[in-house]
Amino acid sequence: MQISANNPDRKTWLHVDKNSDFPIQNIPFGVFLTRDDIITIGTRIGDTAIDLGALHQLGYFSDIPLTDDIFLQDTLNDFIADGRKTWRAVRNKIADIFDAENETLKNNKQHKEIVLFRLDEIEMQLPVQIGDFTDFYSSKQHATNLGAMFRDEDHALLPNWLHIPVGYHGRSSSIIPSGIPIHRPQGQTLPQDSKDPIFGPSELVDFELEMGFITTDANDLGEPIPVNEAEEYIFGLVLFNDWSARDIQSWEYAPLGPFLSKNFASSMSPWIVTLDALEPYRVQGPKPVKEQMPYLQTKGKKSFDINLEVAIQPKKAQETVVCRTNFKYMYWNMSQQLAHHTINGCPVNSGDLMGSGTISGPTPDSLGSMLEITWKGTKPLTLKDGTERQFINDYDTVVMRGHCENDGIRIGFGEVKTELLPVFTPKKK
Amino acid sequence: MQISANNPDRKTWLHVDKNSDFPIQNIPFGVFLTRDDIITIGTRIGDTAIDLGALHQLGYFSDIPLTDDIFLQDTLNDFIADGRKTWRAVRNKIADIFDAENETLKNNKQHKEIVLFRLDEIEMQLPVQIGDFTDFYSSKQHATNLGAMFRDEDHALLPNWLHIPVGYHGRSSSIIPSGIPIHRPQGQTLPQDSKDPIFGPSELVDFELEMGFITTDANDLGEPIPVNEAEEYIFGLVLFNDWSARDIQSWEYAPLGPFLSKNFASSMSPWIVTLDALEPYRVQGPKPVKEQMPYLQTKGKKSFDINLEVAIQPKKAQETVVCRTNFKYMYWNMSQQLAHHTINGCPVNSGDLMGSGTISGPTPDSLGSMLEITWKGTKPLTLKDGTERQFINDYDTVVMRGHCENDGIRIGFGEVKTELLPVFTPKKK
Repeated sequence: MQISANNPDRKTWLHVDKNSDFPIQNIPFGVFLTRDDIITIGTRIGDTAIDLGALHQLGYFSDIPLTDDIFLQDTLNDFIADGRKTWRAVRNKIADIFDAENETLKNNKQHKEIVLFRLDEIEMQLPVQIGDFTDFYSSKQHATNLGAMFRDEDHALLPNWLHIPVGYHGRSSSIIPSGIPIHRPQGQTLPQDSKDPIFGPSELVDFELEMGFITTDANDLGEPIPVNEAEEYIFGLVLFNDWSARDIQSWEYAPLGPFLSKNFASSMSPWIVTLDALEPYRVQGPKPVKEQMPYLQTKGKKSFDINLEVAIQPKKAQETVVCRTNFKYMYWNMSQQLAHHTINGCPVNSGDLMGSGTISGPTPDSLGSMLEITWKGTKPLTLKDGTERQFINDYDTVVMRGHCENDGIRIGFGEVKTELLPVFTPKKK
Repeated sequence: MQISANNPDRKTWLHVDKNSDFPIQNIPFGVFLTRDDIITIGTRIGDTAIDLGALHQLGYFSDIPLTDDIFLQDTLNDFIADGRKTWRAVRNKIADIFDAENETLKNNKQHKEIVLFRLDEIEMQLPVQIGDFTDFYSSKQHATNLGAMFRDEDHALLPNWLHIPVGYHGRSSSIIPSGIPIHRPQGQTLPQDSKDPIFGPSELVDFELEMGFITTDANDLGEPIPVNEAEEYIFGLVLFNDWSARDIQSWEYAPLGPFLSKNFASSMSPWIVTLDALEPYRVQGPKPVKEQMPYLQTKGKKSFDINLEVAIQPKKAQETVVCRTNFKYMYWNMSQQLAHHTINGCPVNSGDLMGSGTISGPTPDSLGSMLEITWKGTKPLTLKDGTERQFINDYDTVVMRGHCENDGIRIGFGEVKTELLPVFTPKKK
């Protein structure tokens, strides 16, 4: 099936700002609460949110085989489980309904009142029930920076790194959508030159700029996914902030990896941009510096040219962009991550989330964490309001944005935005 | 509310073998497929499985506030979310219905035909949809053995181990109930004295004897659970085999922890034995050898005296018991694990699973993994059929069993039993 939704010449009868992340060529999927307190699956064109549950009830998808309640759900999991053919048909149909030359819905005032929402009338939810969350570590620059910082500049990459898209399991329960504030975590840390740990608020709370991809049902227990089939199982991508408490991390992580330093919160952008929508932005990834095993060898362009940025916004002050980088710098691509994840037969299901790992680029202004930007806090950063940052302060809001652009079309992810509040104080009983 | 279900003097009108794990004082919860291909929540007394969905429809729980379909589900998650008061009321009521002196159901042949099943008429399912799976590392003996093996006998425990109930995130999607065979995983391993890894079947597939506990909805994002309230959120326990591929593990695990070496499969026993049923078997755990932080200090008996054993059964041969140990040896108890897990505000939900980590005791015959039993394969084990084992062979079945016993009452977990098949071969297309 053709991806007619990607037609760059298509215009829509909805208003779309010139620099919008959401032209009619995007058509992402999300879940929102409407002004009538109904949860529905929707999409977005410009600054208009579209209730797909209502559109389907009104018969606009009658020529696509869909169950009646497929969009009247509080997660996208079932829709994602329907597979690529269905996602593509629905996206093509939405493009058609909102095409500037299609007057059916455009001229139906009653239907438009039911189906269309201003953004301030809706509340975005987490778009999927995340069964399992895996976080990779696939930026060579990031892994090298951390190795140089904590081990040895000459042997910064561990011996396995060029052979394996290193990854580990994260926590699903603490993944939240953009807009939900989080609390500074407390826990055990080891002060410098001390033998015994102390207890208290983490003093080194950091962001990690990542992208995440959402999968569909891919394989049964025992069955690997071949690397060059892997993209068939990727529904779409989101921006992902993998919050980290560096002081808790360095004390707890040996020998089983990060735990409480990561699972206090991770935030994601609420609109899932489909892999289909990203087709025009495929690029070749970095050339492997060491031969990769056959099960990890990909053919063709498996990376994506996505511009990314991170800003810090102190309370009541303007934001400062602290990082500009690109998803295309990742050494290991999503196909390799998924092939590696399943080479042992581990099952991947609809709604699983895989994080890329921190996306750091080759230049000092393209580093995806404060740990790297301020080099463990040794080179503090001055924000536009004149204050300094080594890590993230209470009441700072961290904003991540991402978009692709070529031939005058811009496909974006919107943003993931999270405020860090002070340590949680229990209510008196 | 009294736990009248635990009354040691109660007899039942159902037949129960003398050494059964499932006397009327147990009343575990599970999910099964009936002879009519219906999924239901049930319990077990002796070798009789009891359909709680049908019992509820027939009105036997009419004096307990329960939704109509609470037992007509394919997981226990919603029932567990109802909380301890409901679990206790239902368990007490089941004890009453099957009490030797209660003739209501006993004398209703028609009802009994609907409600009671022989074990060969049902198929046990995974009892919960596991939102998140966390695995701890809480046996001091196990952590010491591994440290001595892979690091240094004099500094076997890492500096954080006595301060932190070390844990990490595992994979939910590959957790299976007893009885489902698994395939030997393949992956990357580093041969001795080699710089580069090779690809192939893991040669060091191992079991890990663990217990797992299942939680209910415990806290919101940001809110820690106080250690002495933690048991309120524990529904019950299962036997847990955390399958491990030691050669994949040693190559992949730095710096983010085990991944493919663990997530190819973990098996659990299908009947969840409630914490209530284990009340009579509380014991004091090992005395801390180092002072623990206040958020980890427990009062009273928070450990449980549960006898555990592991057997290896080669194809068509009799089994050999290779380990006998006890859950009471764990250095960190479940309350401490849950308090630690949430001290940073990580949310714990109904259906989450927490593994204890490998349970090794103080003697050579009480070690919970082949890695320890054969000391990295250097001391092979001879089975009853005369064959030797360093690790687990293809077509071996690993069986784990556990039970408590005192005052003539035995409360058991049944078993978790899994056959290891050779590497998966893709079907020709």
